[in-house]
Amino acid sequence: MGFITKAVNDVEDPLTESQAIAESIESRGNNVIKLNMGDPAKYFRTPQNIIDAYTNALQEGKTSYLPGQGLMELRAVVAERYSDLYRLRFGADAVTITQGAVEALDFLNRSVISKNDSAILLAPFFTQYLPYILLQEGVPLMANYDEKRGWDINFEALERTVKKGKKPKYLLLGNPNNPTGTTLAEGSLRRLVEFANNNDLFIVSDEIYDEIIQRDRFISIGQVASGVPYMILNGASKNYFATGFRIGFSIIPGDDKKSAELRHAFVKLAFSRLSTNVPAQHAILEGMAAKKEHAAFMQTVLPKIHGRRSLAAKLVNESGFLNAVMPDSAFYVFAKIDFEKLNLKDDREFVGLLLKEQHVQLTRGSSFGMEGYVRFVTLPEESQIEEAIARVKKFCKNHEK
Amino acid sequence: MGFITKAVNDVEDPLTESQAIAESIESRGNNVIKLNMGDPAKYFRTPQNIIDAYTNALQEGKTSYLPGQGLMELRAVVAERYSDLYRLRFGADAVTITQGAVEALDFLNRSVISKNDSAILLAPFFTQYLPYILLQEGVPLMANYDEKRGWDINFEALERTVKKGKKPKYLLLGNPNNPTGTTLAEGSLRRLVEFANNNDLFIVSDEIYDEIIQRDRFISIGQVASGVPYMILNGASKNYFATGFRIGFSIIPGDDKKSAELRHAFVKLAFSRLSTNVPAQHAILEGMAAKKEHAAFMQTVLPKIHGRRSLAAKLVNESGFLNAVMPDSAFYVFAKIDFEKLNLKDDREFVGLLLKEQHVQLTRGSSFGMEGYVRFVTLPEESQIEEAIARVKKFCKNHEK
Repeated sequence: MGFITKAVNDVEDPLTESQAIAESIESRGNNVIKLNMGDPAKYFRTPQNIIDAYTNALQEGKTSYLPGQGLMELRAVVAERYSDLYRLRFGADAVTITQGAVEALDFLNRSVISKNDSAILLAPFFTQYLPYILLQEGVPLMANYDEKRGWDINFEALERTVKKGKKPKYLLLGNPNNPTGTTLAEGSLRRLVEFANNNDLFIVSDEIYDEIIQRDRFISIGQVASGVPYMILNGASKNYFATGFRIGFSIIPGDDKKSAELRHAFVKLAFSRLSTNVPAQHAILEGMAAKKEHAAFMQTVLPKIHGRRSLAAKLVNESGFLNAVMPDSAFYVFAKIDFEKLNLKDDREFVGLLLKEQHVQLTRGSSFGMEGYVRFVTLPEESQIEEAIARVKKFCKNHEK
Repeated sequence: MGFITKAVNDVEDPLTESQAIAESIESRGNNVIKLNMGDPAKYFRTPQNIIDAYTNALQEGKTSYLPGQGLMELRAVVAERYSDLYRLRFGADAVTITQGAVEALDFLNRSVISKNDSAILLAPFFTQYLPYILLQEGVPLMANYDEKRGWDINFEALERTVKKGKKPKYLLLGNPNNPTGTTLAEGSLRRLVEFANNNDLFIVSDEIYDEIIQRDRFISIGQVASGVPYMILNGASKNYFATGFRIGFSIIPGDDKKSAELRHAFVKLAFSRLSTNVPAQHAILEGMAAKKEHAAFMQTVLPKIHGRRSLAAKLVNESGFLNAVMPDSAFYVFAKIDFEKLNLKDDREFVGLLLKEQHVQLTRGSSFGMEGYVRFVTLPEESQIEEAIARVKKFCKNHEK
């Protein structure tokens, strides 16, 4: 019997893979272009009205514990947001404030995954969907999106996946998707709901980028999920440019038994860790309540985000070594590496050598469950994006067959 | 197969037991005296220099992600604190910043407890020691402190406990203790280290109240743990009056294999949840670095905390129905209920009826692993403490045999 659990041993170690290498390169005075963290607060300042509300909460002494589920007024304004944006009707009871959306993933898996229980993921998926399944000794059942159809859901794969092993506890999708930067059409979501109905599946939809969209209208799972229990993950990190606040929202609105049980489990788990950061909850409450200021802020920054993402996708596709579906949301480009042209064996080697040789930090596709790709974060200014992709191109030329 | 895991079903539900009842009483216009949350930020304002540092960090735009293990400068100043206070020498590498000390408990249990693994707890213990063992499907092995010897460790019970079942992964003690408000003498700690040596045990010492002490000098486990691997839990919540910030510290300083493996596991788990609240880390960095301001603040508030705790203990012991060992630390009185004099069957009934009839909220001993007791939080002003204990006395008289 070892000291450390098998589950933790199975979780990937980020430090030895890239963080420590990047730090070592920087410590020798080199500039690393980091396109690996989807952190909008780093490139666009958190809105000043939210910073000021945070400051006021602190100066007013709002620094003691709150109930585990979060500030009641914030939970209510989250519910109001869903009424405004998607005409969904639920109360504050459906909402739990979590320490980032990742804590909601943690609570979800702890609530429903015991050893050997399974859950369906669609690759490519946000890296953190996996560790919380593994920490419960659960089994991820892999389906996928189809690149050829613009990263639409691959329903044929899904049908095959659901027939493997025992009944999955949930199906988790990211929409808009990290890493592909694409959104699902209403028709696909409706077909997914039908699939979930047929297979008695609980749907979990991570919609944390739902306002970082280029198309006219984002469709939330809540708008189409008739007859199917579901949960939505969201938070302040991306839409409110407040990654470092660690404020997530989880929404479980259903009247059915599964939803009621999951809400109750969340109450217990939220109580166990006592509270989420308190002044940050007051800050986000103000930020969400100030709807005009939020709309004005988004009108200023979204064109920049869309411009940078489009530029990155264009340059990647012109590189001659990488190909990406044009993204329409979030701030990522997910590109297939053309290994037929390169003397490199896999995405791990690609990303590792790129960092060491050209000082550009990307994230390998295999950490999103899809080998042979790389993810670019497209938030930095145009000149940085151009420089980074020029370096990637140079790297590929150096390793051309 | 149910939807919710057995582990989560086994965790206690706080809402139905007391929170909802207290809210319902208040909603009818009644004043509930809440002596159930050990929240110093509620009764003594968070130091202004920390609030100002927090505000500055926000205004300077320190709102994007930090590495999972936390702000390097904060980790270094935590190490410096242990050098200053206890002459312990370790570097920032030994320190992980967690979302409150409870997250360090979570990381600990996830790292070392698999199904049916055991850990030793000494009752009475802080309520949250238990759920993170149960969530891992682990087995708590119960030893205890001995009330007759001023809540010193009961080594006879410990010897018996360690022989039960398979080898425990760790022994967890709270020192100063919540709920008893007592500290362990150096001799007891040395005997515990000898016991750990003999039984190849990893010691975990929760020292989150180490500055809220009345006696001359607190002895940290680090000062006596020669030859035994150990971990210390601490944080900003109590010593820096910043409960709502959710900033905890976990310290694993050893050069041995277990310590190295546990540090590595913490790196992975901290990475998985991305980051702790960022501006709060900058605030606590400033608060810990400003040693003179901190000392001056403590000199102002500690006499008040000690006075209120002593008053509460005195009044409890004069009540005729409850008896408590005089506490010398933290802000709790843990009192044995004299059920021989009362028409009540257990501490759950005592606490439930007290809330409903007299609108005083205490915490039952059984939630600290010790049936037949109640814990008073002694932070409110003297008049509130007097009123609360008068109501408790009235309650007991109403239920006298």
